[in-house]
Amino acid sequence: MAPTRRYLDWNATAPLGAEARAAMMEALQLPGNASSVHAEGRAARAALEKARRQVAVLVGAEPTHVTFTSGATEAANHVLTPEFRMGRSPLTVSRLYISAVEHPAIREGGRFDRDQITEIPVTSEGAVDLTALETLLVAHDRSQGLPMVAVMLANNETGIIQPVGQAAALVHAHGGLMVVDAVQAVGRVGVDINDLDADFLILSSHKIGGPKGVGALVSRGEILMPKPLITGGGQEKGHRSGTENFHAAVGFGAAAEAMGKDLASRNAEIGRLRDLLEREMRSAAPDVIIHGQDVARVPNTTFFTLPGLKAETGQIAFDLEGIALSAGSACSSGKVGESYVLTAMGCDPKLGALRISLGPQTTEEDIAQVLAAFTKIAARRKPVGRAA
Amino acid sequence: MAPTRRYLDWNATAPLGAEARAAMMEALQLPGNASSVHAEGRAARAALEKARRQVAVLVGAEPTHVTFTSGATEAANHVLTPEFRMGRSPLTVSRLYISAVEHPAIREGGRFDRDQITEIPVTSEGAVDLTALETLLVAHDRSQGLPMVAVMLANNETGIIQPVGQAAALVHAHGGLMVVDAVQAVGRVGVDINDLDADFLILSSHKIGGPKGVGALVSRGEILMPKPLITGGGQEKGHRSGTENFHAAVGFGAAAEAMGKDLASRNAEIGRLRDLLEREMRSAAPDVIIHGQDVARVPNTTFFTLPGLKAETGQIAFDLEGIALSAGSACSSGKVGESYVLTAMGCDPKLGALRISLGPQTTEEDIAQVLAAFTKIAARRKPVGRAA
Repeated sequence: MAPTRRYLDWNATAPLGAEARAAMMEALQLPGNASSVHAEGRAARAALEKARRQVAVLVGAEPTHVTFTSGATEAANHVLTPEFRMGRSPLTVSRLYISAVEHPAIREGGRFDRDQITEIPVTSEGAVDLTALETLLVAHDRSQGLPMVAVMLANNETGIIQPVGQAAALVHAHGGLMVVDAVQAVGRVGVDINDLDADFLILSSHKIGGPKGVGALVSRGEILMPKPLITGGGQEKGHRSGTENFHAAVGFGAAAEAMGKDLASRNAEIGRLRDLLEREMRSAAPDVIIHGQDVARVPNTTFFTLPGLKAETGQIAFDLEGIALSAGSACSSGKVGESYVLTAMGCDPKLGALRISLGPQTTEEDIAQVLAAFTKIAARRKPVGRAA
Repeated sequence: MAPTRRYLDWNATAPLGAEARAAMMEALQLPGNASSVHAEGRAARAALEKARRQVAVLVGAEPTHVTFTSGATEAANHVLTPEFRMGRSPLTVSRLYISAVEHPAIREGGRFDRDQITEIPVTSEGAVDLTALETLLVAHDRSQGLPMVAVMLANNETGIIQPVGQAAALVHAHGGLMVVDAVQAVGRVGVDINDLDADFLILSSHKIGGPKGVGALVSRGEILMPKPLITGGGQEKGHRSGTENFHAAVGFGAAAEAMGKDLASRNAEIGRLRDLLEREMRSAAPDVIIHGQDVARVPNTTFFTLPGLKAETGQIAFDLEGIALSAGSACSSGKVGESYVLTAMGCDPKLGALRISLGPQTTEEDIAQVLAAFTKIAARRKPVGRAA
């Protein structure tokens, strides 16, 4: 008999939540286009604007500062551009500084040329090196344009929380723009655009139980905005053209509202399960390396290396045991590459690492089955350090 | 009692069709990310690839040549770029030629600078002027790069069908690239990328009964491709990054399959209702101007001017009678502007015009209520030609 499936890959994508599903089922009955002026159009518009308020509340922003996009990757490509407007005046950003552990959507640099991008190193604990950031900002040539710094709030592979507030203080002291990829943090830790002192936040719906195909670029104000990436009919106040995907936005809004409720108690329970998992993993295989275990992480993520187990092999082995988990992040067609996050942390990426990520529906039974699989897989590894 | 609502704005957006709804309900149960390698990821991938085949079949293309996007506007911004690749070599497009009646998603020109865009005039019958196009192509300076020509297959306001095949022959005779916005044509007339001799087709899901938030850029081959607009994880073979929105793609695929069935008979019935509507409109108001009535149009669209009735006033009056129709196209937040399509056709845009667009679920009762409203609104117009 095939083992029960256990989904432990919430950082890749969360299953659609009950709240989002219910809201979408209702919205999908609405026939209109949110830019039409007739009754059907106005109903679609009302649903869209409600969703915008729900998303804004989750991150402490103004609803008018939420620009819906097709996802976090589009939002990143939208904001990562040398061409900004300050009101009606053009404003140039001459260099993008990104941490060495950013998601590929940021690492690719959006509309910046390769030679306009500088990497900020991270410490061996996986946090952005603030001293290195300050050195870079001091050396930045303001005569060419502003510096822009992009640092994620929580890393998608390790779950490590970055010192975004401190980074933002440095960036603003040097007159720069601070972009925060909050995709993996929202719903797991409190996120407030003002507390973070961020100029822009990047959000994704499907990581918090909303549908795929929608995300947002949230801004601190509305005067300073990037040149639009997608032009056309002038929707989203001209910042993002294309028929508003209000069905998906409604699901995103409902998921955002649900995530905002009981945030602390929900995550305490998720953290309890994750910590239980890690304790038992170490007990079953004392040589397991749990990356970032001693630093601040979101409560749902375990990124580990089992010496002697290749990440690709491990992923398949767990899959056969009914466990869905990842080797690194789930982007680009099925490829299992070396972890640049491990490399940036000074670990040997050849070690390989696997990611278990929990969600609000994760149960004790899920954890028990993961541990049984882990114990089995750990026991049959190749001994390390002996020649083949 | 409020009048029964009658939705006659299918060119703005089609209500979600039964096939798309059923397919999406099933897909929304799948928890995975189509780029994950575990069983849940593979199930999502399989659903995505089935959708790709369904969309390809509708337009006679290869599935591997379908790149899913967040909609037609994104697809337009993707393909309208000076930067192409021919295999591994860069290839420059130095000028974009667009017909004067293109949708704003094309008119804005994507990644071309304003001064790289030339408008091709249309005849008084609303068709692209092929003689003018040829003159432009002859004058094009090949030493700077290739010419790209974008002509829509069916106009969103008038429904007029453009001589795309003839335009493509001219474009290819001059070594250019032919882009066809097929958004309003698909499902209403047969569309085949090879028959049209198009290099790229732009498609939208929500105009054919699929969900919003998904569309496609369909290419004739896979060697010659535009520089990606959205970079990151490398999904869609690197052409379009971002977690695949497979739930929406599945709805798009199901809608595409449904649209391909009984195309001729379904559209014959829609055309019968539309023609009935136009006959009765003329009978109720002999001075009504029906734009493009004597030229080839898609069967579902009526774009008309009632002398003495402002478009904005007319739209509100019909809305109060329970009829959802448009003044021009439904893009950019609720604005009712002058029709650039009428201007391009040499009509006075101050006339204003209203668009009634039918769909597969339009009934005789819908038409009867539209006619009753039309008759009432026509009767109370201000007399034309007398001073106020």
